[in-house]
Amino acid sequence: MHTTGKVTLIGAGPGDPDLITLKAIKALQQAEVVLVDDLVNQAVLAHCPRARIVPVGKRGGCQSTPQHFINRMLVALAEQGQNVVRLKGGDPFVFGRGGEEMLALRSASIPYDIIPGITSGLAACSSLEVPATHRGYTHGVTLVTAHTQNGESLPWRALVESNTTLVIYMGMQHLATISRELITAGMAKEMPCMIVENATRDHQRAVTGSLQTLPMLGHQHQMQSPAMIVVGEVVGLANSADTLQMLGQFEQLKAVNAN
Amino acid sequence: MHTTGKVTLIGAGPGDPDLITLKAIKALQQAEVVLVDDLVNQAVLAHCPRARIVPVGKRGGCQSTPQHFINRMLVALAEQGQNVVRLKGGDPFVFGRGGEEMLALRSASIPYDIIPGITSGLAACSSLEVPATHRGYTHGVTLVTAHTQNGESLPWRALVESNTTLVIYMGMQHLATISRELITAGMAKEMPCMIVENATRDHQRAVTGSLQTLPMLGHQHQMQSPAMIVVGEVVGLANSADTLQMLGQFEQLKAVNAN
Repeated sequence: MHTTGKVTLIGAGPGDPDLITLKAIKALQQAEVVLVDDLVNQAVLAHCPRARIVPVGKRGGCQSTPQHFINRMLVALAEQGQNVVRLKGGDPFVFGRGGEEMLALRSASIPYDIIPGITSGLAACSSLEVPATHRGYTHGVTLVTAHTQNGESLPWRALVESNTTLVIYMGMQHLATISRELITAGMAKEMPCMIVENATRDHQRAVTGSLQTLPMLGHQHQMQSPAMIVVGEVVGLANSADTLQMLGQFEQLKAVNAN
Repeated sequence: MHTTGKVTLIGAGPGDPDLITLKAIKALQQAEVVLVDDLVNQAVLAHCPRARIVPVGKRGGCQSTPQHFINRMLVALAEQGQNVVRLKGGDPFVFGRGGEEMLALRSASIPYDIIPGITSGLAACSSLEVPATHRGYTHGVTLVTAHTQNGESLPWRALVESNTTLVIYMGMQHLATISRELITAGMAKEMPCMIVENATRDHQRAVTGSLQTLPMLGHQHQMQSPAMIVVGEVVGLANSADTLQMLGQFEQLKAVNAN
């Protein structure tokens, strides 16, 4: 006989290993087994030196572990009485499929906790000094994925008319679509945009430009996933070496808007 | 003669003092003076026992410190050579007016860093076990403020048509408007909603209901600021004692949508 264990779904944050929370560290220190995504900075595993580490992300061109298999493994390990941590990049509930894992645990009556993390899209903004919701520029910020279920189209016109900063996850295969659809839906083609690769990591790279030049920027600079795409006037406040060209475009944009 | 100091803009996270990041803790440990908002859980000041603490938030019914005064104080302290931390609730760039402070520092040529925090709106979701971007339910999540500059109206129809979960900051004075405008713009009046007061703190309270009952819920349960309002089908996945009534409404909603 043994008692059932538990599962803690943890967001490790955007990449910088110091952007993990104290609460996550404490949970990792208690963990017996940690199922970890490939996108998580493996440096955070220093907080759980005695735990068994199970990588479940995409590695070396292999298929990623199917979600239903991860769900079953979480349930099985907890039923064996283990203290299980499921460690995910960013926040488990912002495009992290943490909801699916939670529902699997809930329906199997496994005790669980959720520890949020800083989502990578908002960290990409602050790492480039872009205040995502700056007053007078925007009503707020919208986090969407370009990688929709069944490939359905995003409601582009509503996204434009929401007058919010757009932070697009998993969009690197869709740069041309994003640019074309937002312009078609009425957004100015001079709207400042940026692509942030490996946000908050040592090897972060970022490029800025306009909505029209977005596909070219991604191609020219060979920007790779994981990357965030940010679209909105606030990107005009970005501070980076790559920003100089764009700031000129932003001033032009404001002049156009003023007329 | 002295060298110029620096300012670190830090997000302390949503309220639970363990939801602060390791990076924020390290910066607090080095701080000589900390300008802290009232909404920050004062327990996190344990990380900077030797720093001078300057409260700049709204207290005891007094007026909050004007933003331009805070900006000037940050610049002046750094010019005196101090290592200054500006500690804000949530994330400094999500309705935290961190952008204004950053721009003041930038124009005064003061060195600064930005350390993001978990924004309270997303933490409110995970604390109620609501996966904000759950696949098949929503395209993403939109963070907006109901307290707009100059009192201008939000683009309600676009928010509805964006098909994203809505997380509304500073909305407690606007519950009736939010409910009426979203319904007028085409959202189902049975849409699940919740109000989360003091998210992630020990004294967190949450109520769930429908878009139509939102104003009554806030009134009946005497929900107070700071609180987050979350609107969307994902709220139907919430786990709380208050959720039972709402889940029934959610099943009805799905039945209506299926017809």
